[in-house]
Amino acid sequence: MERRGFVKEIGIGLIGFGTVGAGVVECLQKNGERMAARTGVKLVLRKIADVDLDRDRGVKVDPAILTRDGNALLTDPSLDIIIELVGGTGFAKEVVLKALQNGKAVVTANKALLAEHGPAIFQLAAKKGLPVGFEASVAGAIPIIRAMREGLVGNRFQRIYGILNGTCNFILTKMEKEQVTFEHALKEAQAAGYAEANPALDIDGFDTAHKAVILASLACGSPLPMKAVFVEGIRGLAKIDMEYAKGLGYRIKLLAVIKLADDCVEVRVHPALIPADSLMASVSGVFNAVMVDGDMAGQTMYYGRGAGRLPTGSAVVSDLADIGMALASGVPPPPVFPAGVTAPACRSMGEVTNRFYIRLALLDQPGVLGRIAAVFGSHSISLASVMQKETQTGRHVPVVLVTHRAKESDCLAALEEIGAMNVTNGPAVRMRIEDLGAEK
Amino acid sequence: MERRGFVKEIGIGLIGFGTVGAGVVECLQKNGERMAARTGVKLVLRKIADVDLDRDRGVKVDPAILTRDGNALLTDPSLDIIIELVGGTGFAKEVVLKALQNGKAVVTANKALLAEHGPAIFQLAAKKGLPVGFEASVAGAIPIIRAMREGLVGNRFQRIYGILNGTCNFILTKMEKEQVTFEHALKEAQAAGYAEANPALDIDGFDTAHKAVILASLACGSPLPMKAVFVEGIRGLAKIDMEYAKGLGYRIKLLAVIKLADDCVEVRVHPALIPADSLMASVSGVFNAVMVDGDMAGQTMYYGRGAGRLPTGSAVVSDLADIGMALASGVPPPPVFPAGVTAPACRSMGEVTNRFYIRLALLDQPGVLGRIAAVFGSHSISLASVMQKETQTGRHVPVVLVTHRAKESDCLAALEEIGAMNVTNGPAVRMRIEDLGAEK
Repeated sequence: MERRGFVKEIGIGLIGFGTVGAGVVECLQKNGERMAARTGVKLVLRKIADVDLDRDRGVKVDPAILTRDGNALLTDPSLDIIIELVGGTGFAKEVVLKALQNGKAVVTANKALLAEHGPAIFQLAAKKGLPVGFEASVAGAIPIIRAMREGLVGNRFQRIYGILNGTCNFILTKMEKEQVTFEHALKEAQAAGYAEANPALDIDGFDTAHKAVILASLACGSPLPMKAVFVEGIRGLAKIDMEYAKGLGYRIKLLAVIKLADDCVEVRVHPALIPADSLMASVSGVFNAVMVDGDMAGQTMYYGRGAGRLPTGSAVVSDLADIGMALASGVPPPPVFPAGVTAPACRSMGEVTNRFYIRLALLDQPGVLGRIAAVFGSHSISLASVMQKETQTGRHVPVVLVTHRAKESDCLAALEEIGAMNVTNGPAVRMRIEDLGAEK
Repeated sequence: MERRGFVKEIGIGLIGFGTVGAGVVECLQKNGERMAARTGVKLVLRKIADVDLDRDRGVKVDPAILTRDGNALLTDPSLDIIIELVGGTGFAKEVVLKALQNGKAVVTANKALLAEHGPAIFQLAAKKGLPVGFEASVAGAIPIIRAMREGLVGNRFQRIYGILNGTCNFILTKMEKEQVTFEHALKEAQAAGYAEANPALDIDGFDTAHKAVILASLACGSPLPMKAVFVEGIRGLAKIDMEYAKGLGYRIKLLAVIKLADDCVEVRVHPALIPADSLMASVSGVFNAVMVDGDMAGQTMYYGRGAGRLPTGSAVVSDLADIGMALASGVPPPPVFPAGVTAPACRSMGEVTNRFYIRLALLDQPGVLGRIAAVFGSHSISLASVMQKETQTGRHVPVVLVTHRAKESDCLAALEEIGAMNVTNGPAVRMRIEDLGAEK
């Protein structure tokens, strides 16, 4: 790292001039001077690379700094920091690794890349003594990475709950507030530009899982593999379950759940019933939120826009400022993952305990409910509440059960046994309940 | 600043071994090693000074590091950072200024000190190239200072709303949820240890005002004087207004409001009606929250415990880590307030605009309400709603008015005129409405 003189000027190269890239440019143009006054470092955008140089991004850029050749930036001696906004895990990976190899710091918003290739990236960065900024990779504008790494640095993390996908939260909020079906809400999300034509990455939970593994890795101090995460999405969530959940005092959110014990960690993403009067339940529409439980700070929560041109741009730019100051100081920052910390074991999903919401279409005959209850009992699951609605037409009636805390594997075994009893119509609907509170 | 070698050890001296001091010690004892691994810096608590060395604080400390002589720490060459937890603005000020004078970095949780003597302290720190940490001075465990200075560094701040006093929020939550009087709720807060025997600093809004002026100064990039803040507390808030507010879809919170325009800033602390379905309205009990509106990030919110041994200790320790790293790097951090930025003008309270909640005890005679409405109209205030309850015993009936946006001075003039009309019983109750949303 070159130690610069009194005028601390840091050269920036941006690869990937899409929505977020344009947001970064706008942010630097509007507030760059203000930032330089605050930080003592001037961030100078010297090169922008993108395959498409013709599209209007709504920001004016000197054409001389535009190029189609991303690779050229990686060896450009005038650049100190490379912003990777290419997306995906192909060329983006190459960009990040080559930039580090060439002695350049990196800022990225690419959660998939970090979730899948984090170890290689952070290892190389540590070896080269170079910072990697990734504030924008989780929860957009919310400075959650900084909060965990700096604001809560004195804490042992115990639990983290995240609403990390704006598309899913938009769909769930719509379903709840307007009593529409999942399919209807998804279409509206697509029409509003919040969901892709192929929405799988969002609604099947993988985007949330990428972010969850990043937060869990930070909490553990060591990168966790993607396979550590249990993932279940919200595709096809039934309207009726939203209504039952509401009646029970809950709302349904696609939740990232991270729980740490001394010897193991559990990381999972799934729809969950959370108390309707909790702050997390009030997070509506495309907003994101993260609740962090530390042994010293207690519960803190962070809320804001999880995506979008300027919110994500704001997060990228905060990394530029931070890294700009570090480069100007000439002192390598501490590595993201401390040397010598090994990742704890990951709790297998079967061992995870939860309270469960279960809906069955049950044969309307005397004794059936009792037999069902007995099956749960034989699997060490006790029922907290049973709600059987008035008989409708047909031989099966909907029955909603809420269990006390039970093991995932026990719950599955009980439901398998019940399924084989020939008293239900169709498979059980099962969701986990997270109280977000004092439970361990 | 001495540049240290490979083992980066930073000597800490703590002056003021009270509740928070003990929290700091516990945090360092429990998580110090973990922090050293994360930051590459070892924080070593070398001295603790307090007038009372006998009291049991629930933490074990080597008696050899204890002293009654706080002054001795200020010249102790083994100390790099002085933590000021003395409180007040007397000896505490001396501690902070002398420590800086002697080349030591400072960490403080003292909002009153910073609100009243911030300019002198930050000026000296900038001159000496020394960091001053004050994360713990606002909103306890919530890393709001860091969020504003780093996470949102690319933003121009537009509005900030804060619930910054746990005691007041406890009282208001109690009043609302249990329908008790202010006096009753205050007694419960005192019994629970949340309110002092003399609760004036909390309930009259001054503690919130200290914190508001710190946040407003950060937002402006230049220290604002305490006299910039308009302060009104919650003392004697009537139960009935809480109920009317609820009926109108609002909750009452003691709110810090900071609004920035290009040429001026307004900073005020007062009870405010905020939408019951807003996230801020869901902040209950002793918890704090800050909502920040930035031109790039949009709205972000930060929530957590605003006080207490470990939460505040966690914030102090985050500053130690940050400053420890800065000292180890040997490079002075950027000053808290950039040179050359001058504070914007402060909008006088009379010029501030708001919607208002007004309750009058009005003479129950034909034409009176019309005359009242006419007075508001003559002062350019239009009424959004008028609610007159069924006549009770007596000649006066409660009437609740909600105005459209109006100037504070106009509202006061109208109420003065109404007061002189001899149609009301007692003074009007008046509160401001903050929609926290898109209004400018």
